[in-house]
Amino acid sequence: VRQSGVRGGAVAASELRLRWLSAAVLVPLVLWACGAGGWPYVLAFSAVAAIGVNEFHGLLRAKGVIPQRVLGLSGAALLPWVVYWGDPQLAGACFAVLLVGSLIVQLFEGRSEGALAALSGTLFGTAYVGGLLSYGVALRFAPEGGLAHAGLDPAAGAFFAVFGLTCAVGSDVGGFFSGRRFGRHKLAPRISPGKTVEGALGAVALGTVGGLICWGGFRMFGESRVGELPLVMAALAAALLAAVAILGDLVESLFKRDAALKDAGHIVPGVGGVLDRIDSALFTLPVLYYCLLRYYAA
Amino acid sequence: VRQSGVRGGAVAASELRLRWLSAAVLVPLVLWACGAGGWPYVLAFSAVAAIGVNEFHGLLRAKGVIPQRVLGLSGAALLPWVVYWGDPQLAGACFAVLLVGSLIVQLFEGRSEGALAALSGTLFGTAYVGGLLSYGVALRFAPEGGLAHAGLDPAAGAFFAVFGLTCAVGSDVGGFFSGRRFGRHKLAPRISPGKTVEGALGAVALGTVGGLICWGGFRMFGESRVGELPLVMAALAAALLAAVAILGDLVESLFKRDAALKDAGHIVPGVGGVLDRIDSALFTLPVLYYCLLRYYAA
Repeated sequence: VRQSGVRGGAVAASELRLRWLSAAVLVPLVLWACGAGGWPYVLAFSAVAAIGVNEFHGLLRAKGVIPQRVLGLSGAALLPWVVYWGDPQLAGACFAVLLVGSLIVQLFEGRSEGALAALSGTLFGTAYVGGLLSYGVALRFAPEGGLAHAGLDPAAGAFFAVFGLTCAVGSDVGGFFSGRRFGRHKLAPRISPGKTVEGALGAVALGTVGGLICWGGFRMFGESRVGELPLVMAALAAALLAAVAILGDLVESLFKRDAALKDAGHIVPGVGGVLDRIDSALFTLPVLYYCLLRYYAA
Repeated sequence: VRQSGVRGGAVAASELRLRWLSAAVLVPLVLWACGAGGWPYVLAFSAVAAIGVNEFHGLLRAKGVIPQRVLGLSGAALLPWVVYWGDPQLAGACFAVLLVGSLIVQLFEGRSEGALAALSGTLFGTAYVGGLLSYGVALRFAPEGGLAHAGLDPAAGAFFAVFGLTCAVGSDVGGFFSGRRFGRHKLAPRISPGKTVEGALGAVALGTVGGLICWGGFRMFGESRVGELPLVMAALAAALLAAVAILGDLVESLFKRDAALKDAGHIVPGVGGVLDRIDSALFTLPVLYYCLLRYYAA
């Protein structure tokens, strides 16, 4: 997620207030969806994936690339459901239909100029936004899916999802405020000139704190066996995810810089687009998923 | 596969002789690999996928795009093995490592200019060549894999693979000669000016004949229950695959035209690159796979 505040005072007080308001609406909604699970959770991921891909297509169009909107968006909207249904044959079929379908559509449009970029961009947008976001679904249903052997109860999935999202958001918020307050040394001037080393340290710190609060909350109030996860492991995982979140944020900065755009969209008041909000989670969700597979396999 | 001969006399006699020689070496090799199955078969697909992606990267570079060679090639080389091992978790992990890995490499290279095109092109090349080619592995091992419920014996997999490849090659050869002899009406002048409607009809005709010869051969000499596949179904499937092969061929023409290159490579004497040879099979293999899933599910 964009840490434009790291630019030191670049964000007006009114915009900051809008951000807090957006958060006050979104955070309870997201927590509710994580707790509820089932189809409302998958539907939320499906909708966010489609909106995110739509914004990604905006970046492509800014580069003069004309992606295939219908196939790209419906592919991304479908991926969380494919992961939810857990049928590998279906996943393969979706891949083939999206790929071969977009090739044939391009063929019948008869435009060869820019065909490589259009087809590549369409597949990449769906994979980057829809594919990586779908790990949020894999996490939520891991006790019944990839971690079925570990004997976790279903509520553990809610913890994993909340943990992965909290580390991402904590990293964003920590980077924003600590960069604004202490930012001095540039982190990656060629990719995102506003980001500082001090911001990155604050990101890791608040991301870790966020993850641990989440861990403590589930330990105290949750009914699942998640509390058995040792504090040290939770802290290490949270710190790793917070660091990975910075990479996710930088990757989207890379794309926006390539496309010479500041924000990917304007859907969230005060915060830009959906893609600007989820870019960190696109990295934390898959990394957490594979960490859990390793941890519970031992 | 390229039907440059459809351009009427554009192919010199010496080049044609080279093509026959190449075929005389390659056809027995491919038939042996299909019969043998096991790791030599998968290794052949893995090698062809890597060479094909390498040629695809050449098309990208002709467009000024700098793909990530190591990740793109190793991803394509790995995909046939992933299908062979049949572990969906592994497939997901490969996807995540290829995608997130290429994003991080791009980040540390610090180049934002062209990042979208480079990352898109890398993923697309691996998916287009490696992903679609891997359906050849899925076909060969379908009796133990996706069609395990159908009670086919393993030799049926050899038939499916040979059938899918024969229809593609038959379509190419039929298109080449009938286009050269009868070609008059342009098929897709904006994409591939050399291709004609007459060539396409010849492609479907010879592709169907090739598929039926293959069906007859297995019926007479094979030990599998494949002979129970009715003649009408085999003919319909072969005609469909031969038509689909033309689309696969046109898609690669689209790419070459976009990149303003005539051939994707020069590895096969007289025929251009590996990509120019396999482009039809990239379409026939997945289409046949899903046709079989439908047919044997009933």
